[in-house]
Amino acid sequence: MSAIFERRSVRKFLPKSVEPDRIERLLRAGFEAPSAHNRRPWEFIVITARKDLDAIAGMSPFAKMCTEAAAAIIPCANLNLGEAAPEDTWWVQDLAAATENILLQIVEEGLGGVWLGWYPDKGRIEALSARFGIPSHIVPFSVIALGYPAKSVPKADRFNASRVHYDAWDKQV
Amino acid sequence: MSAIFERRSVRKFLPKSVEPDRIERLLRAGFEAPSAHNRRPWEFIVITARKDLDAIAGMSPFAKMCTEAAAAIIPCANLNLGEAAPEDTWWVQDLAAATENILLQIVEEGLGGVWLGWYPDKGRIEALSARFGIPSHIVPFSVIALGYPAKSVPKADRFNASRVHYDAWDKQV
Repeated sequence: MSAIFERRSVRKFLPKSVEPDRIERLLRAGFEAPSAHNRRPWEFIVITARKDLDAIAGMSPFAKMCTEAAAAIIPCANLNLGEAAPEDTWWVQDLAAATENILLQIVEEGLGGVWLGWYPDKGRIEALSARFGIPSHIVPFSVIALGYPAKSVPKADRFNASRVHYDAWDKQV
Repeated sequence: MSAIFERRSVRKFLPKSVEPDRIERLLRAGFEAPSAHNRRPWEFIVITARKDLDAIAGMSPFAKMCTEAAAAIIPCANLNLGEAAPEDTWWVQDLAAATENILLQIVEEGLGGVWLGWYPDKGRIEALSARFGIPSHIVPFSVIALGYPAKSVPKADRFNASRVHYDAWDKQV
């Protein structure tokens, strides 16, 4: 799956909107992620209005590129669909897997995107929830800024043999 | 990227080992995951010895299929490579993304696999750390059991339009 090896964070976008059918395939990719006990505790919010994207850009020191992005997808956790016990946080892993699926499908669609960390930053969560009317049992987990890339981002091989261990922690090949 | 849409949890495996070059490509896929501030806080342990896989099967109520699996990959967080503050847990998301990349590459390789939740279950973490000599600053995050699938697992479309919201939480198309 070349998308895994081609994916890079893209933060510069062309002033060009993304077709609705591409957005839908991105969402479909998110829905296909694995989840603990197959609970699928996710919801997705799609933002395309310029003023909303500009507002998101001001909610995190790392979200500036939203002023250029054509769209943002916000994977959220619905805590009513999740664990029995509130201290259980397997849903964090579920939402991260859904986010990664969307990022990979972005590559497949010829688009570019970047994963903006949101949860567990309380300030970012509150700002986003206030603007988009997100109720308290819904946690905006990440923001994926996306669009047609303005330039290609160079690839780098990130394999690091010193981080690979065979048979036990202290053995390497 | 068809692997996203073809991936299913596979828990039945043929008694056939997995070639080392395939294992290496799985690891390479893990290394290519995005991470917060590009910290790449991961390490990977590869387990292929039958007795070790059988031992893992006994460490979680959901790990029985390890007695059939040809291998297990254990993505771990190296806390010394991560955040400055111990209460920061962005690494959980990084490790989940790496786990998902490996699961997708498993599909690409014609293999099958399943994501076994490990972190934050203390008992599972302690059992695995004790057996494989994993030091305290390394957190075994998940266990991916894998091998050649014994049967194909039926696909299901998981798209759910009621979980998609446009422009704001309370709007749907």
